Amino acid sequence: MNKPAKSLLPEGTKARQVYLSLRDQIADGRLEDGENLPPEQKLAELFGVSRVTVRRALDALAAAGLVVRRAGSGTTVRTSGQPGKPMAMNLATLMPQLVEMGQSTTARLLSFSYGAAPEFAASALRLAAKEQVQIATRVRSTDGIPFSHLTTYVPAAIAANYSENDLATTPLFKLLELSGVQIKDAHQSVSATLAGPDVAEALGIAVGSALLSLRRVVRDVNDNGVEYLSGLYRPDMFRLEMPLTRVGDGSLRHWEPAIGKPPGEPA
Amino acid sequence: MNKPAKSLLPEGTKARQVYLSLRDQIADGRLEDGENLPPEQKLAELFGVSRVTVRRALDALAAAGLVVRRAGSGTTVRTSGQPGKPMAMNLATLMPQLVEMGQSTTARLLSFSYGAAPEFAASALRLAAKEQVQIATRVRSTDGIPFSHLTTYVPAAIAANYSENDLATTPLFKLLELSGVQIKDAHQSVSATLAGPDVAEALGIAVGSALLSLRRVVRDVNDNGVEYLSGLYRPDMFRLEMPLTRVGDGSLRHWEPAIGKPPGEPA
Repeated sequence: MNKPAKSLLPEGTKARQVYLSLRDQIADGRLEDGENLPPEQKLAELFGVSRVTVRRALDALAAAGLVVRRAGSGTTVRTSGQPGKPMAMNLATLMPQLVEMGQSTTARLLSFSYGAAPEFAASALRLAAKEQVQIATRVRSTDGIPFSHLTTYVPAAIAANYSENDLATTPLFKLLELSGVQIKDAHQSVSATLAGPDVAEALGIAVGSALLSLRRVVRDVNDNGVEYLSGLYRPDMFRLEMPLTRVGDGSLRHWEPAIGKPPGEPA
Repeated sequence: MNKPAKSLLPEGTKARQVYLSLRDQIADGRLEDGENLPPEQKLAELFGVSRVTVRRALDALAAAGLVVRRAGSGTTVRTSGQPGKPMAMNLATLMPQLVEMGQSTTARLLSFSYGAAPEFAASALRLAAKEQVQIATRVRSTDGIPFSHLTTYVPAAIAANYSENDLATTPLFKLLELSGVQIKDAHQSVSATLAGPDVAEALGIAVGSALLSLRRVVRDVNDNGVEYLSGLYRPDMFRLEMPLTRVGDGSLRHWEPAIGKPPGEPA
């Protein structure tokens, strides 16, 4: 489903809500290829909308190539021929893992400024009140389609070591390490949220679409917070993959993440 | 925000969409405690709705205790006094980590049946076409508030080793291990989706709310798929936490998950 959803959206907020919900269920596999959707009247009842609204949503799904509508035999999910799986985050690099050869990502800087750290970033990074941070918002795209909306907060003294231009080309924690910061650990917290108007526009999606949301706090060897990242990702284009292994015996048996080390580069 | 959102929802689909989007931004910290929201007219433009609609959404946010509205001075985010952080998934046990002492979860079995594996589960578990699986849907709650909607698919031959009642009381992979299955590894894939009518009702939330979505495939030592889980979680009540450590030198420097082993129990 690597196409901007915007142009495909049906008219009307209710039809859009039905469309987005069904589209997500198809993308998820909760509605499968070849599966028949409930009749229009039943869908209208389920969503608490009119049949006309359901019809508009189904027409939009058909236009998006996600369902086939046939007079008399209803609406059938048709996902074969859809583009492949979304890219995943590589947990060894925390960067998108490009699943297909030749795929590359580009970053566009939406905003760049210095100012007092907002409360959530200040408390996560354990900064003093009103401490200055660099605040940068980037949108990352692949094949011209935006998939992530990233806002980073870095203490001003650290951010002074790299330029606005560096930020558009190089992963932030690489810049931090090049600046002499000794990164010790990070903490990621993963959740979900709805796209508001600004983020929806930047990602080319509808207001009210579901987004994977990720917060990351990075600390150096002295336990000082050096980066706070707030990332929003389109679930049709990006996901988190977590391989796990079951280890230990008896009551100590538990799961452990099984993340391979990245291949070494020539010295 | 550990309260069912349903009763607080404003009338009207558009007002509901504005409400949900702002509520998520407040829950995320993108809108902070003490921050003033843009004026009603500006919000109306941003969301492409009328001022009356914006006012209904703001009234509902005020009723939910998330904002304070004052004539003349607009609308201010007020999150202090909100219940604490959502619970997290413990990656060593893959079970919710109850953040407060005394919190416990209960599971309710919504449906339980045997049938042909749907295509996505069959292919993930590498089952033969039409192979029979047990399909169970459970809703897990804490303090009476539902936070997860879990559907599991287990090959019928394995599922024969435990009862419907076991499933309501014991984590599924514990049941699998008690049945003699030697679990080797699992793969989790994390994304986001919108709540459809069924799931919204089961979780006590509005249709179109954002949900954290998780798919898990569990394999035994012979590489046979033994469990497929499709989990949907309320982001206001549940999140995934991932501590990471930066290890290795030079070009081999990378992130590794830092998951502590669970405390040992007396033998």
